Amino acid sequence: MRANDAGAVIEAWRGLLGEDAVDARDETRAGYARSTAAAGAMPTCVLYPNTTEQVAGILKMASVHRAPVHPISRGCNWGYGDASPPGDGVAIVDLGRMNRILEIDSELGYCVIEPGVTQQQLFEAVHRDAPGFWMDATGAGPGASIVGNILERGFGHTPYGDHVRTTCGFEVALPNGEILRTGLHHFEGAKAAPVFPYGLGPMLDGLYSQFGLGIVTKAWVWLCPKPAAFRFFWLKVPDEGALEALVERLRPLRLAGVLNSAVHIGNDLRVLSATRSYPWDLTGGTTPLPPEVRATIRKEAGVGAWNVSGSLTGTKDQVRGAAKALRKAMAGLARVYFIDDARLRLVQRAARLSGKLGKGATLRRQVAALVPNYGLLKGTPTDHPLISTQWRLRNPSGAPADPRDVGSGLLWLSPTVPARGRDAVELVQGLEKVFAAHGFDLPLSLTLINERAMVGVINVSYDQQVEGEAVQATACYEAALAFCMEQGFVPYRTALAGSSRFHDPADPFWKTAAAIKRALDPGNIVSPGKFMPTNDGEDQ
Amino acid sequence: MRANDAGAVIEAWRGLLGEDAVDARDETRAGYARSTAAAGAMPTCVLYPNTTEQVAGILKMASVHRAPVHPISRGCNWGYGDASPPGDGVAIVDLGRMNRILEIDSELGYCVIEPGVTQQQLFEAVHRDAPGFWMDATGAGPGASIVGNILERGFGHTPYGDHVRTTCGFEVALPNGEILRTGLHHFEGAKAAPVFPYGLGPMLDGLYSQFGLGIVTKAWVWLCPKPAAFRFFWLKVPDEGALEALVERLRPLRLAGVLNSAVHIGNDLRVLSATRSYPWDLTGGTTPLPPEVRATIRKEAGVGAWNVSGSLTGTKDQVRGAAKALRKAMAGLARVYFIDDARLRLVQRAARLSGKLGKGATLRRQVAALVPNYGLLKGTPTDHPLISTQWRLRNPSGAPADPRDVGSGLLWLSPTVPARGRDAVELVQGLEKVFAAHGFDLPLSLTLINERAMVGVINVSYDQQVEGEAVQATACYEAALAFCMEQGFVPYRTALAGSSRFHDPADPFWKTAAAIKRALDPGNIVSPGKFMPTNDGEDQ
Repeated sequence: MRANDAGAVIEAWRGLLGEDAVDARDETRAGYARSTAAAGAMPTCVLYPNTTEQVAGILKMASVHRAPVHPISRGCNWGYGDASPPGDGVAIVDLGRMNRILEIDSELGYCVIEPGVTQQQLFEAVHRDAPGFWMDATGAGPGASIVGNILERGFGHTPYGDHVRTTCGFEVALPNGEILRTGLHHFEGAKAAPVFPYGLGPMLDGLYSQFGLGIVTKAWVWLCPKPAAFRFFWLKVPDEGALEALVERLRPLRLAGVLNSAVHIGNDLRVLSATRSYPWDLTGGTTPLPPEVRATIRKEAGVGAWNVSGSLTGTKDQVRGAAKALRKAMAGLARVYFIDDARLRLVQRAARLSGKLGKGATLRRQVAALVPNYGLLKGTPTDHPLISTQWRLRNPSGAPADPRDVGSGLLWLSPTVPARGRDAVELVQGLEKVFAAHGFDLPLSLTLINERAMVGVINVSYDQQVEGEAVQATACYEAALAFCMEQGFVPYRTALAGSSRFHDPADPFWKTAAAIKRALDPGNIVSPGKFMPTNDGEDQ
Repeated sequence: MRANDAGAVIEAWRGLLGEDAVDARDETRAGYARSTAAAGAMPTCVLYPNTTEQVAGILKMASVHRAPVHPISRGCNWGYGDASPPGDGVAIVDLGRMNRILEIDSELGYCVIEPGVTQQQLFEAVHRDAPGFWMDATGAGPGASIVGNILERGFGHTPYGDHVRTTCGFEVALPNGEILRTGLHHFEGAKAAPVFPYGLGPMLDGLYSQFGLGIVTKAWVWLCPKPAAFRFFWLKVPDEGALEALVERLRPLRLAGVLNSAVHIGNDLRVLSATRSYPWDLTGGTTPLPPEVRATIRKEAGVGAWNVSGSLTGTKDQVRGAAKALRKAMAGLARVYFIDDARLRLVQRAARLSGKLGKGATLRRQVAALVPNYGLLKGTPTDHPLISTQWRLRNPSGAPADPRDVGSGLLWLSPTVPARGRDAVELVQGLEKVFAAHGFDLPLSLTLINERAMVGVINVSYDQQVEGEAVQATACYEAALAFCMEQGFVPYRTALAGSSRFHDPADPFWKTAAAIKRALDPGNIVSPGKFMPTNDGEDQ
């Protein structure tokens, strides 16, 4: 944005939104620039609209003034850009005040929500108004946005964890100040709009996620019918070489629908980091974790080299049948443990009792780690997974916290992988080498997110308070990404900054995307640089 | 197209494709103009490309010459435009020669196919090369295209019947002559491209169905894992007023995943028309069917006022559990019948035996009607449903046939409906009135196509050999569509001709679609008029 324009558009936005909804103070701007990455860009100001019409107005003025903006929902895009804009000279549109749950339909099982609605908020509302349903939750914590995650195509843990499949339309404010509705929603009175996703004529929904053509102000989200029966399951394998067999045995079950929600295959560090941080005492300050220390702490904590967890849902008979099939598939490789609500209560009671007797610390730690995961598989938000971001800290708090408050450096890498044993092994072996070479540990899980594909959930964890670690972590991330791209493990999602590296101006896919961007956002004012090179205009 | 250009572009196409791949003879053109509607447009010529590159070349020349084209796969879009172009002055690109099955992956369960691949062809290939999987089939017959159906967002009958959910990327030839790949397919060597549908950055797939931005030349299609157990189920209810209760009882089962594939609720005429035509003898030539005759033939044929069919799939235990849940849900309303492979063989043997004894004509008729439906639920293509298009003929052949060969007039109407009893009743009551007022019978089914939505499958059947019936049928269709739009039952799909009626130039949705069309097909050469008004250019 040209400097002389910045003041003018901010004044125009003040006129539209009111004084209290436009904040250009340095400390506010600096707050939004805080990132779990090495650096976050500083916004020109922060806007707090309250309605869709205000968002549309912001965009119209932005187009007139060629003043770029970037929307955030709750700013919890940890490790992918957090609450920061994609570059300098961009205003943040913070949708946090648009946190209305506009409708919950307990008959057809859907809700209509604004981007500011948090996981906790929807969780409570669904519990109250649609007790026959679950919402789907991600591990980003109770304060994270549902819509924000949907727009980055994240995934959760219930049978409704694939958020693209379970979203049924958007309302979008456009750069020209108009308001578009996707699917059947733009037909007046269309009764099936909340339940039939594809509309009539072209489907536009896909253009409004992981891109910058407008600001989504409303989403129709399906709720997961509460199953008659539910069991959490887990298993562990001590052998590091068991990954291939695990994937090969799990895929047929996921394909057959015996397993019908996300299944996680976590390595030892993924599980360990959920309850503890790096053993600086045992390693004399060196990194990465030496194999023998790794084996020791893994064994002490009762963790496998590979650890699988997931849930079985359905009618009682279905769940019983699925449990049988899962046990059979794992025969000779691992014993499968199951837990349901009744048994969980028993275990919790036992842990409390053993605590009173001054015993069973391991049991209590295991139960403490189990409960949030168990809940997540039923769509209960938890901030427990945030603990794992503290793995590398010299002074971890050990309690869940906004990673930026405790100095947790965090860079996510999320490669897509076919649900095939040999691909899983190739990915893991390659990444282990890259991470070790850069002095980092590899906490990794492979999640079977649909019937035939997995996503690797991998983070470079570092300590922001240690000089030089950010640079080292960034180098590790870059090398790991280069390995993934070379071997064909393309990420399903990426950090905002640097996303334009995936843009190839010679590829008809990107040429088409660019033509659409030019047609629908001719001023390049929405999230400039998001998957698009920014060096083609005067404004960046 | 300007007349002087027509010759030039046809010569250019001949140069590109060879003489035998460009047919401008009157009889060929007239063949493609044949329609089950009152009239089909006449193409300028028909092109038969053999490769993606040829399709891209056709489009590039079309852009240069501003000569519009319209692709068809196998031309079996019965009742929605058949093999005809959207209007005059348009060349047909017949993709029938591009009928290669490029890959079948029996591990991850997918195939890569060209648009000319028929249902029968893929069925046989899957049976041979991926015996652990089914393909999903529609009722359009063995000769119909898989990809063509996907691009119109049709649906089939197995758990993979929702074709948008089970397609994982397209290759598309663009108007500028380039070739685009959606999803992860445009990233070189992306291993998860056939199994992870969403790619990275904007999702473009939705733009290439039910629109005209390019010609799809390849699709990645998931195959349905063959379940360990399968049961076909059906039930019938004599009471016409039972529809509301049926929908209310089926929805929870579909939501809960107890029923995990398309479930059909057909009225008496939908079922009757599968095996017989209009009883001209009993009605003295009047239409529509008088209620008492309707009741009589329904009773004679052992058909209910409402008839539900579908399948249960899963492990043995799951299917047993689902059957129990379905029976329980229907208690007091209808008895549920089940049939599996073993029992079907028994019934077939009994029918054969009774035939030899000169008895059991009803049983044999019922078995004859059951077998194709049973197969369809396992993805076996059948042309049996085509018989129903002959309902209104004065001289029906009674055997499956290309509707155009036997003079079957056919206009499909496919409204979307929430899976709620009261909506179903409102739709059916309104349509019964409209159809009766126009002298037509209403063969109708409501298909639960996903967990919360239904699609009405309704056809105006008429006799093309009876003077004036096409006009009368068109009037009935128009009135029925008007009723649906007024009450919010928007179709999920529509006939090619007239699709621009749904376009509202003031609606930001259509303005956005139009801006994309202008940006990506500036010459308006792909399927002009498809959901877009055509009176804005010189070429129409």
